[in-house]
Amino acid sequence: MSSLNFTQIEEAHKRIYSHILKTPLVVSEHINNLVNANVYFKLENLQWTGSFKLRGAINKISLLNLAQKKIGIVAFSSGNHAQAVAYAAMINNISAKIIMPKNAPKIKIYNTKKYGAEVILYDPLNENREKIGNKISKEENRVLIKPYDDLDIIAGQGTSGKEITEELSKLNINPDIYLCSCGGGGLIAGTATYLKHIFPNIDCYSVEPDEFNDTQTSLFNKIITSVKQGSTSICDALLAPKPGDITFSINQKMLKRGLTVSDDEVKKTIIQLAENLKIVVEPGGAVAATALLNKKIEFQNKTIIVMISGGNIDNDFFSKIVTNL
Amino acid sequence: MSSLNFTQIEEAHKRIYSHILKTPLVVSEHINNLVNANVYFKLENLQWTGSFKLRGAINKISLLNLAQKKIGIVAFSSGNHAQAVAYAAMINNISAKIIMPKNAPKIKIYNTKKYGAEVILYDPLNENREKIGNKISKEENRVLIKPYDDLDIIAGQGTSGKEITEELSKLNINPDIYLCSCGGGGLIAGTATYLKHIFPNIDCYSVEPDEFNDTQTSLFNKIITSVKQGSTSICDALLAPKPGDITFSINQKMLKRGLTVSDDEVKKTIIQLAENLKIVVEPGGAVAATALLNKKIEFQNKTIIVMISGGNIDNDFFSKIVTNL
Repeated sequence: MSSLNFTQIEEAHKRIYSHILKTPLVVSEHINNLVNANVYFKLENLQWTGSFKLRGAINKISLLNLAQKKIGIVAFSSGNHAQAVAYAAMINNISAKIIMPKNAPKIKIYNTKKYGAEVILYDPLNENREKIGNKISKEENRVLIKPYDDLDIIAGQGTSGKEITEELSKLNINPDIYLCSCGGGGLIAGTATYLKHIFPNIDCYSVEPDEFNDTQTSLFNKIITSVKQGSTSICDALLAPKPGDITFSINQKMLKRGLTVSDDEVKKTIIQLAENLKIVVEPGGAVAATALLNKKIEFQNKTIIVMISGGNIDNDFFSKIVTNL
Repeated sequence: MSSLNFTQIEEAHKRIYSHILKTPLVVSEHINNLVNANVYFKLENLQWTGSFKLRGAINKISLLNLAQKKIGIVAFSSGNHAQAVAYAAMINNISAKIIMPKNAPKIKIYNTKKYGAEVILYDPLNENREKIGNKISKEENRVLIKPYDDLDIIAGQGTSGKEITEELSKLNINPDIYLCSCGGGGLIAGTATYLKHIFPNIDCYSVEPDEFNDTQTSLFNKIITSVKQGSTSICDALLAPKPGDITFSINQKMLKRGLTVSDDEVKKTIIQLAENLKIVVEPGGAVAATALLNKKIEFQNKTIIVMISGGNIDNDFFSKIVTNL
């Protein structure tokens, strides 16, 4: 069983804090009234590169040795990890090759290139990104920066949990529930580890798209279980078909269980977040808020932390969502 | 000459802080690189009711005596003050009548009603909202809650400046420039008063739409000057035709001068703020950021505070802006 300890997240925080945005934790009185609860939204969509992924990428790349930095890195990602790795490579002045699905949101491909990475597009229906990544890694001797199944990546993502606990502690607030989006499970593994260390009684729930509920079923089955082939969702950031070995091992200890939401519920939530919180959220970034707004469990009179994990959505798709369903 | 002192803002803050959101101050590495400066965005669009106006409204209404509260209040507003007064009246359990232009954004009229106020629509081309407001105030003995030309309102808006200075002081940062939207001038009068008290060398600039540059010309002429009849702008929150007596008197002492921006520049800024800051901003809320992004003065290597004052924009208008110009 892999495990991550609190100290690893503290150390990651020391390493990265000057290179990231301490993202805000905000409250909407309107949403509090809607769900009859005290809700704190952690806005990782405001993080530089538009998602929490920057935390893990900077932590991991900071830990490379000089020889590794000289050769450069390779990564595969549907987009948010891609941008984060490209940005972290740019500020460390090292070469990055990033493998992305050719149908990734345009904004994600555009930004990854903007940060100076070489983007290699693949066909997600017929090609395997891990194989392409491993091949480049081996042939060119580049370190492969995995999107989630790596303790340094998970510790980096966990720093968002540290920021949440610091804000809540200042306000003397003990949260009851933590809702967090889950693709490969790195963000929730890191943040739940930190949150449960400070608030041992908090119940942590992963939130996934209905058809990509691999963490939910794996937790239920107590063994890593993949989703059915041909599953789809608009949540492009959450399409990992199964949990990582390391992330699942941590999440088995940290999570109460998994929740899921439908694409239509996510679209409605994106509108509500634009109207009430005045923020732009991508589908995968909105699933935790979706579980809240659709009352997937009992939230009444509870104090709840909701992770908003990313905001990288194409303008035309965002516009289509907010003008009509 | 009217004047507002620092202590009045401190007192307003004590009165209102538990009823408002302490809004975040955030940084975008991308925008810093674009303008080659250190920019801090104050996100009052995330304030409850979607704009800074809640601060002044709660401060003013808290100060009414019991008899006044029993009778209720009246206000006129293009929309953000309307929602704020309606919300402040709701939480104080008092009756509110709000006079709004019939062409105000639908979201602003909808929310004002949602907070339980009685909305009275008028035709802004043929009717005078101040006359209607004064008539109701006189006939029904309701206190008129002015949108800006009132020291208690200005002191309330100034509390946003207190939050900014607290954040910057924690970071040991001395800002050089403050850019703030300006309609009637209440927000900038209050915040600039606080900021200049803490940072005496800061240069404060009002930002207005090109055709609604009444504060700019009034500052230049050293006397209150109205805009031409028939002036137009998409910045519905900033259409006051002339500065208030009290706000102008304060702003004459506090501001270096006025800047202006075009509607097309504002639209482009709304897109950039959605893409880079992941926030929804209304046209009037985006003018200070517009002045920055269009380098209306020399910003290089400066530390700049940019006020994002509101986010109440109709979904279909927002979508139209972000998908094409």
